[in-house]
This record gives sequence, C-alpha cells and structure tokens, in this order.
Amino acid sequence: MGRWEPGARGRLEQAALALYGERGFEQTTVAEIAKRAGLTERTFFRHFADKREVLFAGAGSLQDLLVSTLASTPDSAAPIAAVAAALEAAGALLQERREYSRQRQAVIAANAELQERELVKFASLSAALADTLRRRGVKDPAASLTAEAGIAVFRIAFECWISETSKRDLPQLIRESLDELRAVTAGR
Amino acid sequence: MGRWEPGARGRLEQAALALYGERGFEQTTVAEIAKRAGLTERTFFRHFADKREVLFAGAGSLQDLLVSTLASTPDSAAPIAAVAAALEAAGALLQERREYSRQRQAVIAANAELQERELVKFASLSAALADTLRRRGVKDPAASLTAEAGIAVFRIAFECWISETSKRDLPQLIRESLDELRAVTAGR
Repeated sequence: MGRWEPGARGRLEQAALALYGERGFEQTTVAEIAKRAGLTERTFFRHFADKREVLFAGAGSLQDLLVSTLASTPDSAAPIAAVAAALEAAGALLQERREYSRQRQAVIAANAELQERELVKFASLSAALADTLRRRGVKDPAASLTAEAGIAVFRIAFECWISETSKRDLPQLIRESLDELRAVTAGR
Repeated sequence: MGRWEPGARGRLEQAALALYGERGFEQTTVAEIAKRAGLTERTFFRHFADKREVLFAGAGSLQDLLVSTLASTPDSAAPIAAVAAALEAAGALLQERREYSRQRQAVIAANAELQERELVKFASLSAALADTLRRRGVKDPAASLTAEAGIAVFRIAFECWISETSKRDLPQLIRESLDELRAVTAGR
C-alpha cells in the first residue's frame, strides 16, 4: 500500500477509456475504473484528480512539446512555419496513439461537458503558442492570429486523421491542412 | 401581473450587467437584478433562463445574422469573401453596442465559467458557418477551415475593438484582421 505502482497510470487510463466506451462517461465511477485496472481508488487519485482528468492528463505534455518546439525553431523561420513545425512534432507524438486517440474522441463526442473541456484545452494551447510567438518578437495581432490559425489547422487535421477513411499520417495531414488554409484565406 | 412589460428585457440586461460589474457575476442574484430593473423575478424568468443567459441571449441573433448573410451572398463569391461579408454585417450590428460589449467582456474575463460558455458560443458560430458553406457546395476540410479562420479573425478584431486605444470601427478591424491572417498564413 502507498508504494509506486509501475505502469499503474497507463493501466488506469486504459481501464477508464474502456469503461467510458462501454457504459458512457457519466455512468462510470472511479471505483469501477480502479477495479478494472486491478488497483485501488487511492492509487487512482495519486495519478488523476478525477475521472474527467484521465482524458486530459496528456494536454500538459502536448502543450510543453508545442511550446518547446516552437521556442527552439530558428528565428529566421516565419511565425507560421515555426508553428507548423511545433504542430508536426505534436502530430508525430499522437501518431503513436491512434487507437487511443480514436477511442478518446468518441467518448468526448458523446458528452457536452467533455466537449467544453476540450474547447478549453485548445484555447489554452492557442494562448501558449501566442505567448511563445510574442517572446520571439512577433507582434499582435499577428501572434494571436498565427496561433489561432495553427490550432484550427491542427484540429481539422486531427478530425480527418481519426476518421475511418484516412490513410495519411497526422503530420502529413497537418501540412495539407495548412496548405488548404492558405488556399482558402487567399480566396482561391 | 403576467402582462408583457415593454422594454423589460433591455432594463433587465442593463441592470444585470451593472451588478455583475459592481459585485461580480457570482455574487449577484436574480432577485437583485429584478429589483435594480424595477421588475419582478417572474418577469426576469420570462426573458432569461438564468443569470448567465443574460450575457448570451444575443448569441442566437448573431448566429442568425451570420448565417443569413452568408447564405445570401452570391455563389460567385469565394468562401472566405462570403464569410467576411457575414462577419462585417455582424460587426456593424455590434458596433452600435460598443459600451455594452466592453462591459460584457470585462464580466466574462473575470469568470472562468463564463469564459467556457463564450468558447462554446464561438464553437457554435463556427459550426453554423461551416454548415452554411457546405450547403453552398464548399467541401471539407475547406468549409471547416474557412469557418474557423473567419471566427478567429472575428474574435481577434473584437478584442482589438473593445481595447481602450482602438479608434477604428469593428467592420474595418475585421477586414484588417483578415488581411493580417492572409499575410501570416502566407508566411510573410
């Protein structure tokens, strides 16, 4: 009791996602998640604040990766190119978790509260990108617009990627989505 | 009792906004709003579901205006130009309510729950624009990207407009914000 359980976090995440898919997010309790994972509720709460945060625990590391990649891109890169490099790095990470991402998306799509939380997550990612651009000397409104454009590109590429028919990988879809944004804003 | 109060809605809105500004949104009750407006709680609930919806009652008519303007733009217009026309029409409407908009924004900025509700509102507006574009024959992802780009342009123009220093009107700021988005996505 009380000791660190190796792999506990991943087992809890997997158990939670399976239960949310089977019974619905609302109907699942922390006790059931812990039981399915073969762990105690106490271990659950050592890893996650509540059952909702199981689905959003990855947002922090996603944001760290976006910010660190953006910050380390050469200053000579145009802001949108630097943001694209950061989004592609995040896309490469998510590419390894396609089945998880698909299951998670289905759970979120079925619940209004989770959709709101997802909107908050994307707004935070956009704000973090805009702040990082400002620290690179990009003025507003260019910094905010570049960040918002980047997040829109990412979200739409992500939706395409988790759809059944898509065969392309996520970093490629992000590049294509940005090309499409350039085309639509140019009015073609 | 029970009869329609002319101007009641506007008086309730004004009273609510004043109280939210003075005491904070959380600390204000519907009873206080009704009293300040010289009306009953019953009249309040004839106009608004709860105290939060006072701040979001205009979202429906904003969406209707965006959708109807977009739907009536000639088919020959590029999707981004049609969306820009819709946003400028919405901007012209809001331009008449600058002081109200500024007060409302200050209330929302001070409350996390209201910020989430505002994110949901913008997501709904984006989804409505994307649906209207699809009905005009625009394919995805172009429809979603154009709608998301439009809403980003609108939000950033709006933030600039309610800031103290801005002297330009909102439709003009929307045009400038779109020009800026074109420039940043092109990588200039």
